[in-house]
Amino acid sequence: MIDAVTVDSAKAQAKRELEEGGVFLPCFGADGLVVCVARAAEDGEILMVAYMNAEALRLTLATGEAHYWSRSRKEIWRKGATSGQIQKVIEIRTDCDQDALVLTVEAAADGGACHTGRRSCFYRKLDMRDGGRTLAFV
Amino acid sequence: MIDAVTVDSAKAQAKRELEEGGVFLPCFGADGLVVCVARAAEDGEILMVAYMNAEALRLTLATGEAHYWSRSRKEIWRKGATSGQIQKVIEIRTDCDQDALVLTVEAAADGGACHTGRRSCFYRKLDMRDGGRTLAFV
Repeated sequence: MIDAVTVDSAKAQAKRELEEGGVFLPCFGADGLVVCVARAAEDGEILMVAYMNAEALRLTLATGEAHYWSRSRKEIWRKGATSGQIQKVIEIRTDCDQDALVLTVEAAADGGACHTGRRSCFYRKLDMRDGGRTLAFV
Repeated sequence: MIDAVTVDSAKAQAKRELEEGGVFLPCFGADGLVVCVARAAEDGEILMVAYMNAEALRLTLATGEAHYWSRSRKEIWRKGATSGQIQKVIEIRTDCDQDALVLTVEAAADGGACHTGRRSCFYRKLDMRDGGRTLAFV
């Protein structure tokens, strides 16, 4: 008989495996995506945030180059395919509940990641003095 | 008459304001959330990835302490309310299309962020040699 205690125990074990286990069990969301933070190998600067579906993750692991899922274009996106800013993946980390990834990358070309021409997509900060209404370029 | 050229021009202008403007226009997803990366002010280490809804963002800006939306508990979550690991927000950056935030924080108590007791949630890396199937603790 499967009772509440058994279910709770199975849930606890699943959580333990996810958090303390040595098996990669990427948790894709309802949209089939997992969020990825790319940071520069050189200095740790956060370059961009993007998403992978299972196929993009598979391609990333198979090629050693970051592939993402473009939510706007609804297609696999080999980062740098047009810009030349190919991201060589040095390391991938997953978080406790395995629903987020951090990629440490070496970006080719000018080493940047943002389509605006800047190195990082995070080039503006909120002005906290006015409640975050305005942005300042950094 | 609103023709295709007018629509394209309006779209281009909206994109320009989002990417090059000085106004914070956070883009919440269909789920009402924006993804947030928290990094340590001390050394830039990525501590965690979490989400904010509009109310969590408002509370963060109003109090200077990070508030998130717990997707599992479906409630506002003042980070550190139980653990003591309150995150004092030093800076918030937004990305080019304003659908992701990076928070630079000073975490109280032991300076950590992960509920497993580790400083960062990203304490395991994929073993790239076996196609990412296994995880190594770092």
